[in-house]
Amino acid sequence: MSTTATLPLADRTQSLVGSVIDSSTSLLAAQKHDIVRFAMGSPAAEAIPTEALAEVAGSALGVDRADSFDYASTEGDMGLRTALVEALEGTSDATALERVTITSGGMQGLDLACKLFVDPGDLVSVESPTYTNGSATALSYQAELLEVPVDAEGMVVDALVEGAERAGRKPTAIYTVPTFQNPSGSSLSLPRREQLLEVARQWGAVVIDDDPYGLLRFAGQDVPSLHELAAGDPLVSSVRTFSKIIAPGLRVGWIDCDPSLQQLLINAKQAMDTCTNLPAQRLVEGFLRGGHLTEHLVASRSAYRERKEAMHDALTEHFGDIARWTDPEGGLFVWVTFEPAVDTEALFEVALAEGVAYIPGNAFSPSRRFPDALRLCYASTPPARIHEGVARLRAAVDRLG
Amino acid sequence: MSTTATLPLADRTQSLVGSVIDSSTSLLAAQKHDIVRFAMGSPAAEAIPTEALAEVAGSALGVDRADSFDYASTEGDMGLRTALVEALEGTSDATALERVTITSGGMQGLDLACKLFVDPGDLVSVESPTYTNGSATALSYQAELLEVPVDAEGMVVDALVEGAERAGRKPTAIYTVPTFQNPSGSSLSLPRREQLLEVARQWGAVVIDDDPYGLLRFAGQDVPSLHELAAGDPLVSSVRTFSKIIAPGLRVGWIDCDPSLQQLLINAKQAMDTCTNLPAQRLVEGFLRGGHLTEHLVASRSAYRERKEAMHDALTEHFGDIARWTDPEGGLFVWVTFEPAVDTEALFEVALAEGVAYIPGNAFSPSRRFPDALRLCYASTPPARIHEGVARLRAAVDRLG
Repeated sequence: MSTTATLPLADRTQSLVGSVIDSSTSLLAAQKHDIVRFAMGSPAAEAIPTEALAEVAGSALGVDRADSFDYASTEGDMGLRTALVEALEGTSDATALERVTITSGGMQGLDLACKLFVDPGDLVSVESPTYTNGSATALSYQAELLEVPVDAEGMVVDALVEGAERAGRKPTAIYTVPTFQNPSGSSLSLPRREQLLEVARQWGAVVIDDDPYGLLRFAGQDVPSLHELAAGDPLVSSVRTFSKIIAPGLRVGWIDCDPSLQQLLINAKQAMDTCTNLPAQRLVEGFLRGGHLTEHLVASRSAYRERKEAMHDALTEHFGDIARWTDPEGGLFVWVTFEPAVDTEALFEVALAEGVAYIPGNAFSPSRRFPDALRLCYASTPPARIHEGVARLRAAVDRLG
Repeated sequence: MSTTATLPLADRTQSLVGSVIDSSTSLLAAQKHDIVRFAMGSPAAEAIPTEALAEVAGSALGVDRADSFDYASTEGDMGLRTALVEALEGTSDATALERVTITSGGMQGLDLACKLFVDPGDLVSVESPTYTNGSATALSYQAELLEVPVDAEGMVVDALVEGAERAGRKPTAIYTVPTFQNPSGSSLSLPRREQLLEVARQWGAVVIDDDPYGLLRFAGQDVPSLHELAAGDPLVSSVRTFSKIIAPGLRVGWIDCDPSLQQLLINAKQAMDTCTNLPAQRLVEGFLRGGHLTEHLVASRSAYRERKEAMHDALTEHFGDIARWTDPEGGLFVWVTFEPAVDTEALFEVALAEGVAYIPGNAFSPSRRFPDALRLCYASTPPARIHEGVARLRAAVDRLG
């Protein structure tokens, strides 16, 4: 008998799902040899702007800055909020101070949005495939999920409407990663964005607009963000993060939503973690004020373009006969689908043994709709290693037979 | 019509309560002149070990440490978890690696405990008075609260039993701040601790043992922690933090609980904030490994003893005729009760105008049982300023009439 059986666990604990990403990370840590890591969706170590961060740390966290280690305001340090609003001027995420609440990474933005909008049993639509921890958060609030297919133009909004009709009810919340989607890499086209907002307004459903990658475009044309298209419509809450554009370990992001929601966000966040860690807020503020973000984005986009091209070249060389893949115009991910089917969960340990890691497709679907797909993150691996990793992946597929 | 009326807010948003602490902080920020701040429960700026932290930052967050800015394991960085287990050896919180999960401050430990144990409508007992954000977290999970009086020996466990009898049902969870309690400053005596654990076992209720101040004893004799007395009983989950013993802005704490719960904690935390910010985890690890905690605690205890004595002296001088107060043997707080009654909420703005801030007693009771009490934090103010602040408080009382 497990100990937990004797404890008064809440009903919602049955809805808490583990992330395959975490277990694969543990598996990776257990491996002795040199694995090509296409699994985690994080920037490359060499893409972390450590020099700028160390420079900022020297002044923001120095011996005369005890105030940087005190509690921050729950809505976020005013210095960071001000610097952020200035940094976003002229972008598709331009905003105003009273709309911005600093969060402990984008993940907490999702947690806050679900806290405010999702009752147990509510229908929440998610993309299929979708970001694992995004759907996990909705599940942790005991949502019922409606999975909506994604194609080269992002979420198929017609399928969202059909899905709601089949379910016999409207979603309370529509969760989307509209740009360089995790895991597919595809982006919601402008007509689809407008259609999605129209559907949300008809339903009175909130849109949880989770866009961590929008500033990482390296090809194609900018598309207005849902945030910009919605122009202050209180139905849209936009979740953003510095994880992919500065560094994920900082755990600093923001939620941009109608000012009438801020007091609820503050109340909810006080009962979650009081405030976001202030040293990291000060690091980000210094990074923005020092003008480092612009130059860092230029370098990141260039590196990620090169890496995506290397990934595409390697996939063409090694998988041209047995798979197809997406063509992202930015972000971190390529989504590979095998034809004929390959069981990518069975493949996982074989691939690890060959020295390459990825995330199996089923991790991105609560109903496990993608047994023959996988996600590759090209962003954290230099081009030559990308070729090596893809060759190893092909060797694993051949070994699996 | 407010905008939120048009949004599909979750039922639980009606249970999200704002903290008077936050609004008083905003009020403070709006004040122009030099206020003596007895309000926030944070260490003094000069008590933040900025020199040691800056020294550690130089090596832990330097240009060659890009890995310090990546995602951390959800259960916490292994370096910190190991250093923590070593640092706790020989203390009343001694533990083992498999029991420790790093959290984003003690507050997230409470959030996680409620996530795992509190269903809507569950009865949760809280001390009365209690830590505002502790009861707020239980409320955010739609708990019903049973308020249990506190006296000089901490929670009155007999009153807990009587309260449950009156309610006609047993609490699912018992929330306690057993040592140098926030806000009363009193500590649960050893007999009461044993009685509390006995009651919890009879009921099958979990004990949420929130002890942020235990290492800040400056008088009296150590009492074993609930964690130690329970000796691995899975009913006790111990929430701890570095906020009061290093710095609150770091947002690093830990939850110590039965290893069978760790996977649930990981699943829950992944859907909250993915992981605790890694730069701060590395700062704390370096702080522990550098042996700074021991010397910092010695200095903190000495300073807080001196400040508590200054607070007592000043209270005796200015309030001997109209109030009584608690005599904490450690921690940050003195609890003052007026006799005859003074409306401490009405007093608040008068006091601010006189140049002194505190937290009104009603903030520490969901049913507002303490209109004539207030909490004073002596820890963040030097002795001379404490005398000045208490004199101003008396002037405010006299002005209020």
